[in-house]
Amino acid sequence: MGLYPARIPQPVIYLVEPFGGSMRRHNLNLPHVFWDDAAVTRGDGVFETILVSAGEPVNVGKHLERFARSAALLDLPEPDADTWVRATREAVADFVRESGLDPQNPADADALSQLEGKCVWTYTRGRESTGVPTAWVTVRPVAPEVVAQRENGVRVLTAPKGYTIARIDDAAAAPWMAVGAKSLNYAGAMAAQRWAASQGADDVIYIEPESGRVLESTIASVLVVKANKKLRTPVTGGDVLPGTTVAAIFARAVDDGWRCKEKDLTVDDLHNAEQVWLVSSVRGGVRVTSIDGKKLPTPKAKEEDAVRVLIENSRRAG
Amino acid sequence: MGLYPARIPQPVIYLVEPFGGSMRRHNLNLPHVFWDDAAVTRGDGVFETILVSAGEPVNVGKHLERFARSAALLDLPEPDADTWVRATREAVADFVRESGLDPQNPADADALSQLEGKCVWTYTRGRESTGVPTAWVTVRPVAPEVVAQRENGVRVLTAPKGYTIARIDDAAAAPWMAVGAKSLNYAGAMAAQRWAASQGADDVIYIEPESGRVLESTIASVLVVKANKKLRTPVTGGDVLPGTTVAAIFARAVDDGWRCKEKDLTVDDLHNAEQVWLVSSVRGGVRVTSIDGKKLPTPKAKEEDAVRVLIENSRRAG
Repeated sequence: MGLYPARIPQPVIYLVEPFGGSMRRHNLNLPHVFWDDAAVTRGDGVFETILVSAGEPVNVGKHLERFARSAALLDLPEPDADTWVRATREAVADFVRESGLDPQNPADADALSQLEGKCVWTYTRGRESTGVPTAWVTVRPVAPEVVAQRENGVRVLTAPKGYTIARIDDAAAAPWMAVGAKSLNYAGAMAAQRWAASQGADDVIYIEPESGRVLESTIASVLVVKANKKLRTPVTGGDVLPGTTVAAIFARAVDDGWRCKEKDLTVDDLHNAEQVWLVSSVRGGVRVTSIDGKKLPTPKAKEEDAVRVLIENSRRAG
Repeated sequence: MGLYPARIPQPVIYLVEPFGGSMRRHNLNLPHVFWDDAAVTRGDGVFETILVSAGEPVNVGKHLERFARSAALLDLPEPDADTWVRATREAVADFVRESGLDPQNPADADALSQLEGKCVWTYTRGRESTGVPTAWVTVRPVAPEVVAQRENGVRVLTAPKGYTIARIDDAAAAPWMAVGAKSLNYAGAMAAQRWAASQGADDVIYIEPESGRVLESTIASVLVVKANKKLRTPVTGGDVLPGTTVAAIFARAVDDGWRCKEKDLTVDDLHNAEQVWLVSSVRGGVRVTSIDGKKLPTPKAKEEDAVRVLIENSRRAG
């Protein structure tokens, strides 16, 4: 049936007044960002990516928390939670309606439960000439490549990030560094993805060269499944952004009898694990099938499915 | 008389078709960047800042070279030099005319020789939905703060960058890293500037923590004047972007009997120098008056002027 049972909707955009609380639907085919916006001139802003599942944005509270933290780290005015939530609800409602589904119609219930979307919040320092932040919400279909990766898994390469961000305890030395902010400075991650593709792989897992510690992939957290129902993820902070999806998985997994922990991990730990996954809110869970060209063992279908269901339920329910 | 003898013109914007070679003046009061442009979503693009002096863009060849290099480092299609140069000439001509000056009128010659502007080239990976790069040229007045800094000098703080970019010789380890590209990922530099302002200073000079090497300031190169007509600048590469202005100064200074060299420098070297300057194409030369709150010795007016004239002539003539 796929994620778009009736028809694939166009992206929906709502512009948000970051202070006044007003918002309005914006025409998809018109630009809205000015030449002197800090997002354009400096990559200066923050964002969050939120899963839309069964016609609802998921895990909004956790995303709001991280969004506010990112904004604070960049000295942006505190985002008004109420405005962002309302804009998100409006945009998602339009997206559902434009998928041809009626949430009130029981006949659409099944199709609605399959409907997925990617919601992005963007919040920039705004125009140089006005000093007022620019803010908007988009909701769009999940890319077919993403859906395919969930099915087929991903081949990854390991590499150092190429740059090292000072860890929290060094922050006094470079006090302005927005460690842990999800900023718009993602060109490096995009370049790493292009490089991976040129090598016939799907993504890069960053490694800290000195310690050999596994950090994260370009756009997702690393989740390792070990024997005896253990889940591990690299220790967050510094170069490792705390993932909202891993947090949701751990919260639910504990109830299911998993032992969950942040731990320093090496590439050998990945090779020796039962399963390795990359998880993020919209891509969901994609299993790593090879690292640097070396195949990972294929888990038993039952065990893989158990993890897949855990990830799916966690990221959908928040 | 100032930089705007007749009237302060509004910014001029030309949108550029990166391949077709066409261009058109764009209304300043209308946005032109779409929600799915890589500049906005990822800070993914490159730029150059070019001085407009006496009604002409300066040093265009050197900027074109670096622009092409930046684009290549980010896997962007090679920019068409001819198109960028033509758009720049049109935009600068409009800017001059809208300053109330007529380049053909001898009575305006003096005023024209004072006219300064800041020209920026922006070239992004473009919209996700089209895959065609977005490109534009702006020409605008030089900010009054910049003019004041030339007059009054700047107080700087030293700090590590907070992140370390792998040096060229490590590039194989993180092969996609756009070392040396002037990318739109400038949020870190902006944050460092805000931090400096909050401490009552004007800028930050980055220091490599392990070696104590002086790197560059957030947006300018460091130029050190030593006894016996020696000019020094930190060795470029890795965390030090090769400055077009330093290159222009060195080229001219050698003819004037200066001995010029890239050298590893420490903060002590700055304190012991005769003069320390930050140089960039539009800000020009601003003398550093204190480092981390410690005043630098004031040079003799004649010696300071000699350096100022050297910098001015170099950056204006290219």
